[in-house]
Amino acid sequence: MNFSSKLLENAVNEFGRLPGIGQKTALRLVLHLLNQDQSTVEKFSDSLLILKKNIRFCKSCHNISDHDICEICTSLKRDKSLICVVEDSRDIMAIENTHQYNGLYHVLNGLISPMDGVGPSDLTVDQLVSRVKDTTVNEIIFALSATMEGDTTIFYLHKRLKDEPLKISTLARGIAFGGEIEYADELTLGRSITTRVPYENTFTK
Amino acid sequence: MNFSSKLLENAVNEFGRLPGIGQKTALRLVLHLLNQDQSTVEKFSDSLLILKKNIRFCKSCHNISDHDICEICTSLKRDKSLICVVEDSRDIMAIENTHQYNGLYHVLNGLISPMDGVGPSDLTVDQLVSRVKDTTVNEIIFALSATMEGDTTIFYLHKRLKDEPLKISTLARGIAFGGEIEYADELTLGRSITTRVPYENTFTK
Repeated sequence: MNFSSKLLENAVNEFGRLPGIGQKTALRLVLHLLNQDQSTVEKFSDSLLILKKNIRFCKSCHNISDHDICEICTSLKRDKSLICVVEDSRDIMAIENTHQYNGLYHVLNGLISPMDGVGPSDLTVDQLVSRVKDTTVNEIIFALSATMEGDTTIFYLHKRLKDEPLKISTLARGIAFGGEIEYADELTLGRSITTRVPYENTFTK
Repeated sequence: MNFSSKLLENAVNEFGRLPGIGQKTALRLVLHLLNQDQSTVEKFSDSLLILKKNIRFCKSCHNISDHDICEICTSLKRDKSLICVVEDSRDIMAIENTHQYNGLYHVLNGLISPMDGVGPSDLTVDQLVSRVKDTTVNEIIFALSATMEGDTTIFYLHKRLKDEPLKISTLARGIAFGGEIEYADELTLGRSITTRVPYENTFTK
């Protein structure tokens, strides 16, 4: 693109580095902000700097938090014998939105991915293991993506935790609600046949 | 969404105000930036603030510029008797990329849109009229969107400029290159029949 201003080009390049934002979208966003008041742009810019400077991660579950220990970990209403292992904070939000889970979490900060050079030492695996050893946990739920990286991570974590006296489970896999059989992939459909559930359990929790 | 941090929520809300960016995308962008170095986040944030503080608009054509008069207006290679009227700076970039135009531009900074409360006084219409009166301009090209707002603006500008000794033209409308007749809308197809061109002119400039 031919920019009429170096400053504009610089800002567009910065926005264009964000994931899923191309040059044209970046230009649209920058021009939108340029049309706003000075104070609006400062608020936008400051919100990011303040977040980056003051952000803390819960020392127990590694979720993004404003305090040393997050609200979920300190809550008295939560079942502390249950830990749900997730990739990042977004997954916690998604699970919290279901209102179906009342235990604690553990954020791995990624998944094992040799292709991207991410090994177990880059994740909070050791912290999870010592958390399991130090506290009374009855069950660990692996809520990780059903991808190669997710499965690799589950496999590794299972190896590290299998000698602990706890139940280890993973999310159920099968046809999504609203999903049509016709369009389901072979692997999912095949697995949903072999792990079929009795009719009585289909529509109940 | 349930945010585990007020600071995070604030930043996500700021990003979510950008056009075309929903809450989920905003969260993805903010978490991406959060994973970057402090210096990267500062560079991102500063690029915007510096742009907003130092941006200038060409005093002649109102295009975004680093100087008082933009590079296109000062260029000796440009045909100064031709002015192409556009909605905003993005349109200039799009037209420049075609390498088919060698005249000057005039940025209106919007289109007349009574629905959104945008009237001629909100645009650089008066500046265009005095520019036409003060300099030797032979032709004005209206390169505005083929929408209700674009057509309204062209109609109004034509009324203001029709007594000046100049040629007024608009962009050609018709089937786009690569466009299939079957999927063209009736209005475009109808117009492209009534304004059909001789075979000899179809594939030449």
